[in-house]
Amino acid sequence: MKNSTDTPAGPRDWSPEEFRAAGRELVDWVARYLENVEELPVLSRVKPGDIRRALPRSAPAEGEPFSALLRDLDQVVLPGVTHWNHPCFFAYFGITASAPGILGELAAAALNTNAMLWRTSPSTTELEQVVLDWLREMIGLPEGLFGILTDTASVSTLCALAAAREAVPGLDVRTAGLSGAGRLRLYTSTQAHSSVEKAAITLGLGLAGVRKIETDEAYRMLPAALAEAVREDRASGWIPFAVSATVGTTSTTSVDPVEELAQICRRESLWLHVDAAYAGSAAILPEYRWCMAGCQHADSLVTNPHKWLFTPIDASALYTRHPEVLRRAFHLVPDYLQSSEEAVNLMDYGVQLGRRFRAIKLWWVLRAFGVEGLRKRLREHCRLGRLFASWIDGDEGFQRMAPVPFSVVCFRATWPGLDDAQLDQRNQDLLERVNAGGRVYLSHTRLRGTYVLRLAVGNLRTEERHVRLAWDVLQAERGRVA
Amino acid sequence: MKNSTDTPAGPRDWSPEEFRAAGRELVDWVARYLENVEELPVLSRVKPGDIRRALPRSAPAEGEPFSALLRDLDQVVLPGVTHWNHPCFFAYFGITASAPGILGELAAAALNTNAMLWRTSPSTTELEQVVLDWLREMIGLPEGLFGILTDTASVSTLCALAAAREAVPGLDVRTAGLSGAGRLRLYTSTQAHSSVEKAAITLGLGLAGVRKIETDEAYRMLPAALAEAVREDRASGWIPFAVSATVGTTSTTSVDPVEELAQICRRESLWLHVDAAYAGSAAILPEYRWCMAGCQHADSLVTNPHKWLFTPIDASALYTRHPEVLRRAFHLVPDYLQSSEEAVNLMDYGVQLGRRFRAIKLWWVLRAFGVEGLRKRLREHCRLGRLFASWIDGDEGFQRMAPVPFSVVCFRATWPGLDDAQLDQRNQDLLERVNAGGRVYLSHTRLRGTYVLRLAVGNLRTEERHVRLAWDVLQAERGRVA
Repeated sequence: MKNSTDTPAGPRDWSPEEFRAAGRELVDWVARYLENVEELPVLSRVKPGDIRRALPRSAPAEGEPFSALLRDLDQVVLPGVTHWNHPCFFAYFGITASAPGILGELAAAALNTNAMLWRTSPSTTELEQVVLDWLREMIGLPEGLFGILTDTASVSTLCALAAAREAVPGLDVRTAGLSGAGRLRLYTSTQAHSSVEKAAITLGLGLAGVRKIETDEAYRMLPAALAEAVREDRASGWIPFAVSATVGTTSTTSVDPVEELAQICRRESLWLHVDAAYAGSAAILPEYRWCMAGCQHADSLVTNPHKWLFTPIDASALYTRHPEVLRRAFHLVPDYLQSSEEAVNLMDYGVQLGRRFRAIKLWWVLRAFGVEGLRKRLREHCRLGRLFASWIDGDEGFQRMAPVPFSVVCFRATWPGLDDAQLDQRNQDLLERVNAGGRVYLSHTRLRGTYVLRLAVGNLRTEERHVRLAWDVLQAERGRVA
Repeated sequence: MKNSTDTPAGPRDWSPEEFRAAGRELVDWVARYLENVEELPVLSRVKPGDIRRALPRSAPAEGEPFSALLRDLDQVVLPGVTHWNHPCFFAYFGITASAPGILGELAAAALNTNAMLWRTSPSTTELEQVVLDWLREMIGLPEGLFGILTDTASVSTLCALAAAREAVPGLDVRTAGLSGAGRLRLYTSTQAHSSVEKAAITLGLGLAGVRKIETDEAYRMLPAALAEAVREDRASGWIPFAVSATVGTTSTTSVDPVEELAQICRRESLWLHVDAAYAGSAAILPEYRWCMAGCQHADSLVTNPHKWLFTPIDASALYTRHPEVLRRAFHLVPDYLQSSEEAVNLMDYGVQLGRRFRAIKLWWVLRAFGVEGLRKRLREHCRLGRLFASWIDGDEGFQRMAPVPFSVVCFRATWPGLDDAQLDQRNQDLLERVNAGGRVYLSHTRLRGTYVLRLAVGNLRTEERHVRLAWDVLQAERGRVA
């Protein structure tokens, strides 16, 4: 590319012809990658430092041709990629770069808008609000909610809890900070995602500001325990201010009894936040709509299209019934950002000033697959989860460790005569062997201290034969660990 | 696309052929868009609500073909886009979707890795660290700094100040929160970006926790005023803990005297954060390296490749000499995220757990243009800024309002016999007329209360003729406002 782009007026970008040629080459590369990803090891086999050592220590002085960039994508980057696109990626929660989502990111990168203010790209702001309204309707939340896209659930929850903190009467944390304030406390279950605690640290509440509530046998928050904790805390001088309920916990995808929690929140004047990052997507299925029961009372709720709606990372949807509180928590308009329109300026509703065009990819995913198309895909994932659970249940060498509300199965291998500590070690060994094979990738968790394997179905490319392969590998490796 | 993707095994993604065809079509669309963006109005002309009304109220039930998506990108989205890619975009700070940067985003979206842990995509973690090390060297920062990519400077500054808060001796904010703590205070100039105040609100310090220090005639923080403020605050019970200096302020791109501020910070044991979001990029030019003087002492520093290094939004680089403090401020490892490698897990160093593959686009921009190529481009932008300033200086109808250290010019139109309030109003009218024309887009600020116009050169596609056009439009409209 080098000097051809150094025009008399000064060096510029690639010419349209150069962009077209490179773009087509990359589109072909991506098509081939997606077609063949199944043949690559799911979990990268490099060692720490391998990739770093394969790269030069400094940026090149002169420009390089696109062919060199693409070559290194293949030769240097790819061996160090753990393939979240692989149909046998069963770890954590599956995510997918679907074709329309990938192309949506290409369009967003090309337009490169920064929607800090409405006027700095009206389409970016308004499409975001419309698409979030589509999604709201799809998952059965009430009309009139305010929606905003953030990058991750961690940031959505941080913003939601910042609004909850701002809503505490008589505090004025925005101006005065927390130094002179009483000790605020928020409640979440022992199964809640770590982002709730991280938000508490960031917001200046500290880990002490989070009280974890016990769960029932299916890992759902116990409303009575919450009510008791709030009572106790008030008596000992804490200021309870928020509850973070979970619809689809990270370990077992359990669904907290949001309806009952909402009643407690109403009675105690607590802000109810719901983390539905994973399972919110399931609510597009009529037969799974039950999981959102009570969420109509939530003061804020997060669900992540980049998790189980085939939208490339990052895209997290934050909804709230109180946009004015969220705005009070965050808006700051310096002179250089004053604007005159009567319109929503999304920079006022969160931590970030810069906001890229995340709505396009979600818009394209929803339109390309359609609501019915998405339902079919999610329904199939839930079927595959249940199918795998039935194999576990039917095999004496394995034990299911939690209910399977959606598409995630918690289980362990068993061997007669071993105690829990020995079983933990054996299962750890088993997981290591399974993942080292490179054909499937599972992750683990602990439930009430016990080491548990987790198989999560969530990638668009996963079919029954892939789940079957995971089962075959597990059975074979179980025999070798013993 | 519809039913062709509904295989017997269940509905899947588009076929490779479908992806290829759609991808090529979109690449062509982008090439045409970038080629012709100059002919579109820079500032969108739609009214609030126009885009929303042009969109359906619900997601479609059935999938739609890619042609429909692309049609609406043209017909619905594009009229509502304010074109940050336009060579006559002179508002705020210019940003650019360069060809290699756009394609880097396409590659990242396709790989769709989530580098929360090293093992969940080693390449994503290690390439990020290598490319940030390249950039560190390019802007003259010392070896051994820890670098991490975040989405925006707002988040980088939030994380940096969270680390500064964590570093306060005897506080243990991570565990205990701020409730029982003394009143923490951080210092920044009256010209600092609003993200510093937003971080203070988020972190629970409140606006009261930020003391703004006066600036000199060139809008640079006054070290003596800082020293005096710290002294005063200690005497009245505040706990000074951090200074946020700016290299390239938002209004006038002024450079705080970081060397002197660093001395005060050392003496007073304050964390020194430097916001070099815009001007850090200029330091790749030997003749502008002066702007980083003193930054080798910074405890943390942010610079944004998505601002003036032709990398699509979002990409902000955060550097720190104290990764262990940043990690202490943020790390939380729940059972489901335990991993055994001796490697850096980037989720431990910031608010966000999910981390997309932002490094590819920056890697490709640095390699495609090369350091020398980037220098030529930035040098040209600075030349254009000085050129425009010289036109302002040579015209009796205009007045320059601040020095021009880089590529941003602050100025106003003048008319004989008007007082400051009248001049403010006239300049406001002038800016509205200029921007309504759609050929150029400038923004404004206030300097010591005075309304000031701002012309910022920063887009890769901007040539001398575009700056000349802005000047012609300004002169013509000045005549019409009078």
